[in-house]
Amino acid sequence: MERNTRQSLFSQAKQWVLEAGEIIREKIDDPLVIDTKSNANDLVTTMDKETEQFFASKIKKNYPDHLLFGEEGYGDKIESLDGTIWIVDPIDGTMNFVHQKRGFAISVGIYHDGVGEIGLIYDVMADVLYHAQKNGGAYKNKQQLEQLSSSLNLQESILGLNHFWLCENSLVDEREMQRLVKTVRGTRSTGSAALEMAYVAEGNFDGYLAMRLSPWDIAAGMIIINEVGGVTTDRHGHPINLLERTSLVTCNKEIQHHILNDFLAKGKK
Amino acid sequence: MERNTRQSLFSQAKQWVLEAGEIIREKIDDPLVIDTKSNANDLVTTMDKETEQFFASKIKKNYPDHLLFGEEGYGDKIESLDGTIWIVDPIDGTMNFVHQKRGFAISVGIYHDGVGEIGLIYDVMADVLYHAQKNGGAYKNKQQLEQLSSSLNLQESILGLNHFWLCENSLVDEREMQRLVKTVRGTRSTGSAALEMAYVAEGNFDGYLAMRLSPWDIAAGMIIINEVGGVTTDRHGHPINLLERTSLVTCNKEIQHHILNDFLAKGKK
Repeated sequence: MERNTRQSLFSQAKQWVLEAGEIIREKIDDPLVIDTKSNANDLVTTMDKETEQFFASKIKKNYPDHLLFGEEGYGDKIESLDGTIWIVDPIDGTMNFVHQKRGFAISVGIYHDGVGEIGLIYDVMADVLYHAQKNGGAYKNKQQLEQLSSSLNLQESILGLNHFWLCENSLVDEREMQRLVKTVRGTRSTGSAALEMAYVAEGNFDGYLAMRLSPWDIAAGMIIINEVGGVTTDRHGHPINLLERTSLVTCNKEIQHHILNDFLAKGKK
Repeated sequence: MERNTRQSLFSQAKQWVLEAGEIIREKIDDPLVIDTKSNANDLVTTMDKETEQFFASKIKKNYPDHLLFGEEGYGDKIESLDGTIWIVDPIDGTMNFVHQKRGFAISVGIYHDGVGEIGLIYDVMADVLYHAQKNGGAYKNKQQLEQLSSSLNLQESILGLNHFWLCENSLVDEREMQRLVKTVRGTRSTGSAALEMAYVAEGNFDGYLAMRLSPWDIAAGMIIINEVGGVTTDRHGHPINLLERTSLVTCNKEIQHHILNDFLAKGKK
């Protein structure tokens, strides 16, 4: 994508993200209509749907040749990453949205022919926008984020990790994950994959591990983390496939080798 | 304690907490001097010490008959809860303070002859003060917190829980804790016991479980949670002993029985 095209697209995407966030804030205390999807804890609200529809209508009207790949299904059927694709999670962290009325984000990643061009993660209630353009650095609101530290031990790291992967599960040996928890300085779980990725970019977390995420959970975060020198792969060290559900290891590059080889490779199922 | 005495003491304590927080915010970007205490991940900074000294000098000067029970050792040697005791954690969540520069709190609980009178938990960087006076309700800044819901299933609960208790440990059967994680709707870990207690009071979390905390981690939170109808015990269902390190189960009363009997009693070591 041309630099000018990217900058123009970024300005438009940013404006829509902020607008969508403003609408959510206005309605945050309205009664919620909550459904469940794949299981009783996979929540979806009217707000998730309306916010995705907001992006769908804006994109279709203004960029009719762009595609939308969204969590709630108001976008296109995506079978390749050809062209310009908006990968959107209208509310990442719906459980937080429902239970806490905070700690959730709008996540928008824009890819062109498979290359990450623009990433936006908006912590709606905190009014904090993490954003990046390819080769343009990453920002938290107007403040440029620093490159991640080049001197970091795994033992002094803080990792984002869902508690579930320490319990018996079908994807990874929980004993290796438990050993990882005992190795690092601390672990955290906030309930929003997009925000945990933003925290990695910010250097607040040194890594975030997940075993099962969807493209819209991570599309924006990957672009932002890339701009501060972080690395993102699946749990086998392979590049992320944005067309499928995937595992995720995104971290300061100083600790990637250790996490992949000393823990995840041994915990492979 | 007389109501007027409590109110006057509350006003003074609140003022000092806000002042101490203001000093921390002013110095948040100063270079840190970090030491470790019981282990390599038990961090303490000059800021922890200076903040406790701030409270120690204020209390000694203004309330010479009050005692201070603080994390950093600038207070008194406390062997009973007789009299008026300020139980203070100058920075609860020191790891967050060091790594994230946010997500930590000043925690002040004031007890009189063993009875919780005043609780203050100040999320310093967010400038959010959770506070309560005995029989006076609980507040988040100026907003009174509602009584906790009287219709809650464990299956729909969100719990605060350190990842460590899902790993093999000497205090509780990790398999029972893993079963709990798989039973509830979601689990979170933020790195500050005081803030997780505040979130329980706020209804953002439905419970917070910990196996090993110190009196200053929980003294304020217990008072605040009590005011919204939550319950706090150790993991055996016994009252908390504020003179010792203790386990903690603080939650919406609708789910206490289940957590204690169906999980912790079975996981007893």
